[in-house]
Order: sequence, then C-alpha cells, then structure tokens
Amino acid sequence: MEPIDQVTARAWLATALAEARAGLEEGGVPVGAALYGADGTLLGRGHNRRVQDGDPSAHAETAAFRAAGRRRSYRGTTMVTTLSPCWYCSGLVRQFGISRVVIGEAVTFHGGHDWLAGHGVEIVLLDDPECAAMMREFVARRPRLWNEDIGD
Amino acid sequence: MEPIDQVTARAWLATALAEARAGLEEGGVPVGAALYGADGTLLGRGHNRRVQDGDPSAHAETAAFRAAGRRRSYRGTTMVTTLSPCWYCSGLVRQFGISRVVIGEAVTFHGGHDWLAGHGVEIVLLDDPECAAMMREFVARRPRLWNEDIGD
Repeated sequence: MEPIDQVTARAWLATALAEARAGLEEGGVPVGAALYGADGTLLGRGHNRRVQDGDPSAHAETAAFRAAGRRRSYRGTTMVTTLSPCWYCSGLVRQFGISRVVIGEAVTFHGGHDWLAGHGVEIVLLDDPECAAMMREFVARRPRLWNEDIGD
Repeated sequence: MEPIDQVTARAWLATALAEARAGLEEGGVPVGAALYGADGTLLGRGHNRRVQDGDPSAHAETAAFRAAGRRRSYRGTTMVTTLSPCWYCSGLVRQFGISRVVIGEAVTFHGGHDWLAGHGVEIVLLDDPECAAMMREFVARRPRLWNEDIGD
C-alpha cells in the first residue's frame, strides 16, 4: 500500500469532519467517518445516527462501511474517522481487512486502535484540535448520551 | 448474573436458529441471533442481511442489537447466536458490555469468543449439530458469498 501524505490525510479527515458536523446539527453524536479506496476514491461516508434513527448500531464507521456497500475485498482501503474507533468499530476494521485507519483524535476517547496496530493495520493519528474540541464540548454538554453511545 | 441452564440456553438458541433459517430461505447468509434481557425478555432478534439489503454491516448479532434499540445499559444481557461471533460482532459485545454470549457452534468458523472470555464475558458454547450442519452446507454451496461475509 502507498504511504499516505499529510495533505491527503487532512483532506480525507475533512470529509469525516463534515459528517460529524452534520450529525451535531441533527442533534446527534458528532462522530463522522469515510471509507476511501486504494486509489483515493470515496467509497462511502456517514456519521453516528443513534439519536436520528434510534439505532444503537449506527456508529460513524459502520455507517460509512454500510454506505460503501458490498465489496469483494477491503484490501488497501482506508477508514477515516474523527475519533479513535471503539471496540465495535475496531472489530469491523479487523474482520473486513481494512488496511489503514486515519484518526482525527484519540484524546477524548481512546478506543481499539493500538490493538489494530498490533494486528497489522496502519494507524495514522492526526491529533486534530478541531475534532478534539468538538467532542470535548459535546461530552461536556451531553455526558449521558455519550456514555450511552459507548456502553459506559 | 444468574447462571443459565441448558434448557433456557437451548430455547434461546431456537430463536436464533429460526432467524438463521429465515435468512437462508431469503437467499441470505444463514446466521441468526437474539438479544435477551437479564429477566429473560427477548429484546431483539435478527439475521444476516448482506444479500437481502445489500448491507455488509448487517451481521446477525448487529441486526439483533439494532432491533433491541437504544438502551442505557446492556449489563446482564445475553447475545445468542448460531455461530461464533466474528471480530466485528465480538467488538460489539465488548464495547456495549453485553454480559454473556450463547453460541450455537464454533466448528465452521471460530471468531472472537476466546478474546471475549478473556475480557470477562461469559461464553456458553452449545456445539449444536443443527447449527453446524446448516453452516457447513451453506459454506460448501456458496463459498464466495461466505468469504465475502467474513472479509476473507
């Protein structure tokens, strides 16, 4: 797999961030994600829809994966997410052989990305202040909803 | 949590097996699941819908979880599934704190249930010949679809 440059990683994160903002405006949990193909094609994008659809299974990464539809293989694909993936979404990445995860931030929540790195998934942690600020404000404002979303 | 007796475990597995059979009849991947509450209430049930909905994120366990809807906590709940849960579904169980997983069989596919056991989830493996026969026939008949479903 081609290594990813910072400009591309930031551009892809912008897609995920736009999804997170859309979720926030809808009154939902502001986590967004997108799945990119090896050639840089956007395969699917989505955001957490727990509140909007009353669907606890709709995390940002699973929504982007779902939007990408059925595929023979995920080799070479990159999942971009505004927040470190929880165990559920980390399990998705591992099971389907998604090759790389680009993460906006892992300060407000530290999910399973170290585990993924240990299983050969390339992890790019961008430490993006905008992603972190959005989550920090959300968690402070809606702690109960956030805890529900991560089963806490 | 109350220990589960074999009669209850088998009765709950019958719900998951009925879901798997429904999926098979629809031309789909025959894996079924159900989520039961601590008091034995059926909270949600479902089956793999990859083929039916063109949705790669709809595994049996995630379908049952989705059907159960939003909940404050999953403490004391039991996920019953006809087949050992893949990493994606194992991640779901771990993230949301589902307490127990009752598994029909782990012969045709061995997922993440040992990992879950190591993280405090109670695993009940029933080694059910009907579940195993159904999957064995399906994998022999539709190997490509099965490999797609587990990202192989």
